Amino acid sequence: MSEALVGPVEIIGVGLIGASIGLACRRAGLEVLLTDLSADHLRTASGLGAGRVTTEADRAQLVVVAVPPDHLGAEIARALDSGGFVTDVGSIKADPLAAVAEHPALERYVGAHPMAGSERSGPLAASASLFDGRPWAITPHATADPRAVELVEALARLCGAVPVRLTPDEHDLAVARTSHLPHLLASLAAGALADAPTDHLALSGQGVRDVTRVAAGDPRLYGQIVAANATAVSALLTGVRERLDTLIEALSAGDRPGLEAVLTRGVAGTRAIPGKHGGPARPSGTVFVAVPDHPGELARLFADAGASEVNIEDVRIDHDQGRPVGLVELVVDVDRIDHLSASLESRGWVTHR
Amino acid sequence: MSEALVGPVEIIGVGLIGASIGLACRRAGLEVLLTDLSADHLRTASGLGAGRVTTEADRAQLVVVAVPPDHLGAEIARALDSGGFVTDVGSIKADPLAAVAEHPALERYVGAHPMAGSERSGPLAASASLFDGRPWAITPHATADPRAVELVEALARLCGAVPVRLTPDEHDLAVARTSHLPHLLASLAAGALADAPTDHLALSGQGVRDVTRVAAGDPRLYGQIVAANATAVSALLTGVRERLDTLIEALSAGDRPGLEAVLTRGVAGTRAIPGKHGGPARPSGTVFVAVPDHPGELARLFADAGASEVNIEDVRIDHDQGRPVGLVELVVDVDRIDHLSASLESRGWVTHR
Repeated sequence: MSEALVGPVEIIGVGLIGASIGLACRRAGLEVLLTDLSADHLRTASGLGAGRVTTEADRAQLVVVAVPPDHLGAEIARALDSGGFVTDVGSIKADPLAAVAEHPALERYVGAHPMAGSERSGPLAASASLFDGRPWAITPHATADPRAVELVEALARLCGAVPVRLTPDEHDLAVARTSHLPHLLASLAAGALADAPTDHLALSGQGVRDVTRVAAGDPRLYGQIVAANATAVSALLTGVRERLDTLIEALSAGDRPGLEAVLTRGVAGTRAIPGKHGGPARPSGTVFVAVPDHPGELARLFADAGASEVNIEDVRIDHDQGRPVGLVELVVDVDRIDHLSASLESRGWVTHR
Repeated sequence: MSEALVGPVEIIGVGLIGASIGLACRRAGLEVLLTDLSADHLRTASGLGAGRVTTEADRAQLVVVAVPPDHLGAEIARALDSGGFVTDVGSIKADPLAAVAEHPALERYVGAHPMAGSERSGPLAASASLFDGRPWAITPHATADPRAVELVEALARLCGAVPVRLTPDEHDLAVARTSHLPHLLASLAAGALADAPTDHLALSGQGVRDVTRVAAGDPRLYGQIVAANATAVSALLTGVRERLDTLIEALSAGDRPGLEAVLTRGVAGTRAIPGKHGGPARPSGTVFVAVPDHPGELARLFADAGASEVNIEDVRIDHDQGRPVGLVELVVDVDRIDHLSASLESRGWVTHR
């Protein structure tokens, strides 16, 4: 029997993710019930229109558990006790599943993980469009009720996301590689800057800024996430340590092929990441444009770039050290570089490639 | 005695960097002499207006050695034999200095390293504006002729760059930290993706793309660069290996404070990177805007953002998986987030923070 998502949807934990799901459900006309230990969060989320506070008498069709990683297992179990279907939005999937594996109503639980977030947290930062076009991992266990899987997929679609189905273990292996390992290596790279002399850091370019950006995230939250995926992350870190030893040995022995092998494997890895549109990665290139660093100039640049009818894949702004001119990098399909460059030059911009 | 940069300037090696320096010198009216083993490169560079091919009779005031790292020492020595002042643009500074330490005219050599580049290489990608506002490290040795230092600083300024003076050893320690170590850790993070199942990589977000981007660079070139800075890089890698061991132990022991300590150190490192304008880093935040993925929409967005009179510090475009809508991240001063968001919403954009 098929099960349509008609609500009510109960959200347990109305931080950034929970409140954003509430807003998306309300936008779709569903009744939304909000539960949180923090009266402040409840007031904010309901004030934003994410739903109303849950009462004793309420019975939800689908409960969404959106609490910090350390509390997922207990809250999923409590939600299952209440009789509805249950999902969660935790960053790790095997750990909370193991915590409720003995629950008699386990079949009503299907884990999930929307791949969205923000540097900010809390319900004030919530938005119904947070999940627009993002992957939303859905991770049914072997005995999951197909109706529960349908409901969770319907929730993901209602939020504008793209459902991606994986087993819980596969999911955790995937995020260990695509999220936790990069985060930890970024932390190690950033950590090496922490005690560097200031004049050395004056040589910092765009590369080190990109590599270390994610390392600015909240250590307590990331500590919880990584700890809950310890097995998969440890296995990858052990592999990295072996390659790091290879690297150190190759450097001290002057073994150039050994060094290049590590770098070449890295190039292959960058090419394995899917293209931004979900298709295969297409070769892209960069046109650099010198832009005076005040508001109107960027608008003029994008108007002129728009007139060239070249689709801009990505943009970076690299401000100069100590003067009010920025260098804007426009990333476009490699076949369109010459056209965009000529078009901008004809409109008076100084570009290079 | 002061020495003004009047030319001729001879460029040995007219790849991206060499040809760009030639173009900048020609723009300033200096005579530029081009030397390269490749007749193709010479034709391209002189055709672009970067200078004319050097003849037997030419004598340069300043010779700029812009060859790959492995050939720097030999070419600097040859240039010193010719009687002019000499600089180079190599990514490493102690190694080439050591190679010419016994040269009788050593005082006429001052090493340098413009912090600029591009994903492309070769003279066709050259531009007189490549160095606009970038740091240009200048690394005099203890016995350098002050006139040589002046000439090299004048060259950096003529190219639009900002001279940053460091000793050769300090320079190499600085780039080991701010460039080589981040590159190698990015290669290790990317390497872990190389053999991942395709459906796992579907969960790749902006974070892993940022962390691994630099790892796409040419393994042969980066192998040369890193090998020439082996001592400084090895010392940092050994420190990273110790922290990695701490991390692996903390994970397997469930030692949360140990894990958080590594992450917290990373946060401190991201804050140590100077602000994009060369001043201290200012707190910034992000406004997310949903934007239809075709050329005119970005122009409209930046026109509207310009009208809000908020200075955009950085921009990222995060395309959706599988549909033609992008999410644009506008990074602005944290105090301006609310104003920008309200201003864009009033013009019909869907934003969140």
